[in-house]
Amino acid sequence: MKTEIISIGDELLIGQTINTNASWMGQELAKIGIKNNRTTTISDTEEEIQIALQRAEEYADLILITGGLGPTKDDITKIVLCDYFDTELELNQEVLADIQAYFKLRNKPFLASNNQQAMLPKKCKVLRNAMGTASGMWFERNGKVFVSMPGVPYEMKHLMETGVFPEVKKTFGLQELAHRTILTHGIGESFLAEIILEWENRLRESELEMAYLPSPGLVKLRVTSNKGDSKLVNTFCDELYEIIPEYIFGEGTITMQETLANLLMERNETVSLAESCTGGFASHLLTKIPGSSAFYKGSIICYSYDIKEKELGVPKSVLLDKGAVSKEVVEILSMEIKKKYTTHYAISISGIAGPAGGTEDKPVGTVWISARSNQRVVSKRFNFGNNRERNISQSAIAGFNLLRKLMLEETN
Amino acid sequence: MKTEIISIGDELLIGQTINTNASWMGQELAKIGIKNNRTTTISDTEEEIQIALQRAEEYADLILITGGLGPTKDDITKIVLCDYFDTELELNQEVLADIQAYFKLRNKPFLASNNQQAMLPKKCKVLRNAMGTASGMWFERNGKVFVSMPGVPYEMKHLMETGVFPEVKKTFGLQELAHRTILTHGIGESFLAEIILEWENRLRESELEMAYLPSPGLVKLRVTSNKGDSKLVNTFCDELYEIIPEYIFGEGTITMQETLANLLMERNETVSLAESCTGGFASHLLTKIPGSSAFYKGSIICYSYDIKEKELGVPKSVLLDKGAVSKEVVEILSMEIKKKYTTHYAISISGIAGPAGGTEDKPVGTVWISARSNQRVVSKRFNFGNNRERNISQSAIAGFNLLRKLMLEETN
Repeated sequence: MKTEIISIGDELLIGQTINTNASWMGQELAKIGIKNNRTTTISDTEEEIQIALQRAEEYADLILITGGLGPTKDDITKIVLCDYFDTELELNQEVLADIQAYFKLRNKPFLASNNQQAMLPKKCKVLRNAMGTASGMWFERNGKVFVSMPGVPYEMKHLMETGVFPEVKKTFGLQELAHRTILTHGIGESFLAEIILEWENRLRESELEMAYLPSPGLVKLRVTSNKGDSKLVNTFCDELYEIIPEYIFGEGTITMQETLANLLMERNETVSLAESCTGGFASHLLTKIPGSSAFYKGSIICYSYDIKEKELGVPKSVLLDKGAVSKEVVEILSMEIKKKYTTHYAISISGIAGPAGGTEDKPVGTVWISARSNQRVVSKRFNFGNNRERNISQSAIAGFNLLRKLMLEETN
Repeated sequence: MKTEIISIGDELLIGQTINTNASWMGQELAKIGIKNNRTTTISDTEEEIQIALQRAEEYADLILITGGLGPTKDDITKIVLCDYFDTELELNQEVLADIQAYFKLRNKPFLASNNQQAMLPKKCKVLRNAMGTASGMWFERNGKVFVSMPGVPYEMKHLMETGVFPEVKKTFGLQELAHRTILTHGIGESFLAEIILEWENRLRESELEMAYLPSPGLVKLRVTSNKGDSKLVNTFCDELYEIIPEYIFGEGTITMQETLANLLMERNETVSLAESCTGGFASHLLTKIPGSSAFYKGSIICYSYDIKEKELGVPKSVLLDKGAVSKEVVEILSMEIKKKYTTHYAISISGIAGPAGGTEDKPVGTVWISARSNQRVVSKRFNFGNNRERNISQSAIAGFNLLRKLMLEETN
């Protein structure tokens, strides 16, 4: 079985919007054992949509289409679908009632352009959309399924979850893929590949597939059996814990911050942060997690010298002698924030994110991080290179890992 | 002239990595007057790459390919390109020297797998990569250009900027597009469309194109003249400032936080934040901006009641009577952080991000935001709905807009 995603919209092509819809769909499809084989992103013109539909019909069994269903004038997907499936629009009374209720609930006036949203192709099965005004449309032809959905991410996700996945599972007899993804931190792709070379060769001889998925600071190793042989996948993945135990921090789609959050919640303990160069990003990663108030109390973002000094007790002499990016400063920061915010642990981060501020001794990318428990403090110097955004995100993740390792050592 | 981007990699298809490369390329191409007409994302298999190359050659004049050039075993793009262009790999001594120097500079051992990176197709022009070990490859055939680049974003960007764009400008006689993008905040797509209906009709009659690009909290209006008629584009865009002045906050690719940052820097003034539900995200958006220490001093992330009380002087009685999400609390927070961190302005945000914590009076999505200057405080209640991440990002942006408007009023 093959799957293709068709993403419609100039805003995607010219990069004003990032195509997160396609990646979300790819991820969710994988979870039910469907691999997305191709994603095609096109303009919302009749010609482009027609070509994409034809090619997708030749290639794939399941075609998921997003975008071009809004009430505004540049949205023509519905018209092209009518033409492609040789049908016409008709007023769907149930959908019209849905839409009117939708506006009433939100106390918003019902506009003429919204009426248009209840005009739907005769030949399709309508998937009702409780999150917006554009319905999903399910077409079948010669055993192939086409689903058209709006491009607004939360509407598309809602339709996928409530309408598309249940129907897809019913319509196709799905063979489950078996896969596991091992997450590593602190080692580059080439070095990792060298260390696991012999393991990887054996894996490929066993007809498993393996992919390296690098992202800033992390390399993910995805092991897949297309035959659904989860036992074989497990044998190989478990072996990795013998070969590279110090680099593995989790599996699947968990993030570094989630592994730390889980540890804290298991122990019913709390953390606070003093962030300089990361400017709130580390705290944001923790507070993005629903329920984070269980383990996170607060932070000080001490961007200026002033605040490091007045609010976190770093003596001016230390700032001047050692610099704000130093072991001494991060250790005072983690001590003070932990005390002030009365938490079990603290992380502090101070570095030169760039592009300016580097020196010969401490080039852009130099970051000092400290993690502290009631018993101990560990501090480490990193260099993450010369890209500001990467520095910020890698510093945050390295900070979480430093505390995670400290916490794990304290149990042992 | 038509352009196609081919993104290679299973990690993109199954959504383990979001295809930010394609959107960046689309954006940058638009800046030099090239529209990206299609993006195709495929597996790194020989068959898929062959099909994509053939179709792209039929369709487009410029084909930009990313991914599948790493030193690991699942990267086969280079081999397929040799086959497609009927050529073979040869050792490129200059690139070999580059790669060896690259490893030496970083004090990393040179591995056998890295040698492979200096083997390049005879028929291509090599684009040297100072940021990594995979070279760019420029092929020409029948007036069509194919460029293959690594998928690592900063390497791809470096190659595009140093090698691809200059060559593309030389090779193609480019007709400049004319476009302007007007950024609005605080009004939904349908309502906006209704207000500007007459304007939009006239615009389309004048052979301009217009697209609505909604993203959380914002709607961008992109006006394009395919004939490069920038005067006509300007006439229409300038008119919008008469029709919807209260909603426009900027143009182009500027973000709300950048408009605020620019205002602060123009006036040489500073801001501090007290963040509850946004958990550091608002501070992060400000500190992501290079040079942010000029206008941003620091924040307190007062996630727990405790810290609101002890560090920001919110009386327990107010927290209990009014709740943490209230006008009274955000006004105390903005007052206290402004005083404590001695800044000209302050923003405070307290809300119920969800999924838990909502009540009948204050459902999930309820957020109180306060912005304060030396003279005044403005506070406003919002409801951003029931998605945690959207709540966080919309709250931050609404906070910036509240302060931005307050600052603009004070000049007038």
